[in-house]
Amino acid sequence: MADEFDIIHRYFAPLTRGDKAAFGLTDDAASIPTRAGFEHVVTTDAIVQGVHFLEDERPENIAHRLCGSNLSDLAAMGARPLGFTLAAAWQKGTGAAFIEAFATGLGEWVDDFDFPLLGGDTVTTPGPMMFSLTAIGEVEAGKALTRGGAKPGDTVYVSGTIGDGALGLLAAQGNLDGLSDKDADYLKGRFRRPSPRVSTGASLVGTASACIDISDGLVQDLGHIAAASGVSVRIKSDRIPLSKAARAALEADPSLLETILTGGDDYELAFTSLEEPEVGDAPLIVIGEVTEGAGVSVTGPDGEAMQLRSGGFNHFAGT
Amino acid sequence: MADEFDIIHRYFAPLTRGDKAAFGLTDDAASIPTRAGFEHVVTTDAIVQGVHFLEDERPENIAHRLCGSNLSDLAAMGARPLGFTLAAAWQKGTGAAFIEAFATGLGEWVDDFDFPLLGGDTVTTPGPMMFSLTAIGEVEAGKALTRGGAKPGDTVYVSGTIGDGALGLLAAQGNLDGLSDKDADYLKGRFRRPSPRVSTGASLVGTASACIDISDGLVQDLGHIAAASGVSVRIKSDRIPLSKAARAALEADPSLLETILTGGDDYELAFTSLEEPEVGDAPLIVIGEVTEGAGVSVTGPDGEAMQLRSGGFNHFAGT
Repeated sequence: MADEFDIIHRYFAPLTRGDKAAFGLTDDAASIPTRAGFEHVVTTDAIVQGVHFLEDERPENIAHRLCGSNLSDLAAMGARPLGFTLAAAWQKGTGAAFIEAFATGLGEWVDDFDFPLLGGDTVTTPGPMMFSLTAIGEVEAGKALTRGGAKPGDTVYVSGTIGDGALGLLAAQGNLDGLSDKDADYLKGRFRRPSPRVSTGASLVGTASACIDISDGLVQDLGHIAAASGVSVRIKSDRIPLSKAARAALEADPSLLETILTGGDDYELAFTSLEEPEVGDAPLIVIGEVTEGAGVSVTGPDGEAMQLRSGGFNHFAGT
Repeated sequence: MADEFDIIHRYFAPLTRGDKAAFGLTDDAASIPTRAGFEHVVTTDAIVQGVHFLEDERPENIAHRLCGSNLSDLAAMGARPLGFTLAAAWQKGTGAAFIEAFATGLGEWVDDFDFPLLGGDTVTTPGPMMFSLTAIGEVEAGKALTRGGAKPGDTVYVSGTIGDGALGLLAAQGNLDGLSDKDADYLKGRFRRPSPRVSTGASLVGTASACIDISDGLVQDLGHIAAASGVSVRIKSDRIPLSKAARAALEADPSLLETILTGGDDYELAFTSLEEPEVGDAPLIVIGEVTEGAGVSVTGPDGEAMQLRSGGFNHFAGT
């Protein structure tokens, strides 16, 4: 295996895109300039091989998804991405080609969002690979979107389409039958390469009363808003926007509705607002309303309240 | 194993010490206020069980050392600690007592440096445990200490005593003979519970021309300063400050001088300065000078240049 300093110099230093703050990854830490009237937002996500990504996942997809999920967390706060640090534990014997492809997967976000690598740590592990990414963004001081501001009378919205991530994981595992190759590929692509709604999040600052990105599952994540805001969130399953591929999957197997509602990995935004929101990088669809009370209730296709077996993904309990 | 949300609520939320920025660990991200005239500094370190800490290390020591090494990185930049995020991958079946002790180990730093937990991620892994910590600090804008400013004519200093970390690891592994129990315990304690020189680092802002914390080993870390500054660093081994315990170990086995020079894990500061520095939380000792040229040269006890087998710890090559 290549030398640690070599790997940093060859594959990761270019991801700083020459940002002075990163000191070319040669220093103990990166410095991040601050702007008057803005505050920094910081979020950390960790993923483990075989737990959060498939054993044989392609390195560029692992990196792309990890970085995308952190950008999604920034989007949920309404923050503009500034840069990130990466902790990477490579398996012993990991080749340079793997590491190079991983860096390429990060590089797409670096370019798309002017989101340079600022620093980090690379180590080896005798166990499964693990990566942790900390993303830093900025938002107007005091204006960060949180989960805690939803009020009775607000409308509940989601961006994009829901359920593609969970259905894509099933398809990638070979557990989703009866779909055309094109639909299956679309869903797998949505699982592997999410589209964080960064511009939508930024455009919701000052409008949305509460916001979250859908990573655990729509129902569980709306539950976080309900709990933090002390309200009840009521949604209707037939209002939930589905992609053409997800609709095809649901027609083939109506029991997949629960997967769509609770499966996670969508990286769309769910938010509440009294005012009509401006559209950013994805369509915004009304799926319900906020009332007094607690928890999340879902009205199913038959007009009755649905009983969901699972509230969403919980890393300790398993899927 | 306990539920992820439960663990966060019970053991980690108290580590926010009520800091508003952390939103009680209930949100997607933390917000960090900025101050006019200051910039933020960010650093990430990762550790793997069996690689960076002993298989059976006590959880409070694992946490204490991880957090201490990140504080040491902030110290090396001259930054005041603001807060941190943690990514923790627990082994399947890790008990609540372990996690509670780990949180206790973090808590000491939280209190000592007003350094709250701001967010993070907890996951499980089928492999060895791994932790990654991202520390955020602040420093006057444009004043962060770096490795790149050493100039010929500067004096080379270190804080505290050198070599205790590497000797302590040998002692903890049972590979250091001929020491009194008291000396062995002292060295083990210095390895397990380093003292990041936060106030020394802050007091060097505006004085030191280059600064680094000694994690890879004194010679290798001075080599980073030499490379980043484009200078040669010349030190004398008999100037290097040693603890009473390290002196005893060296008397018993003079070949340990190389371990002291290259062994790492000291978490003291090494820096260069033209002016006499102010003393912070540790004594400061002159060990050499900066000249034109490149690399690090060490004059040994016999007055001759030492030939060192190892430049320090390299995670990919092993110790």
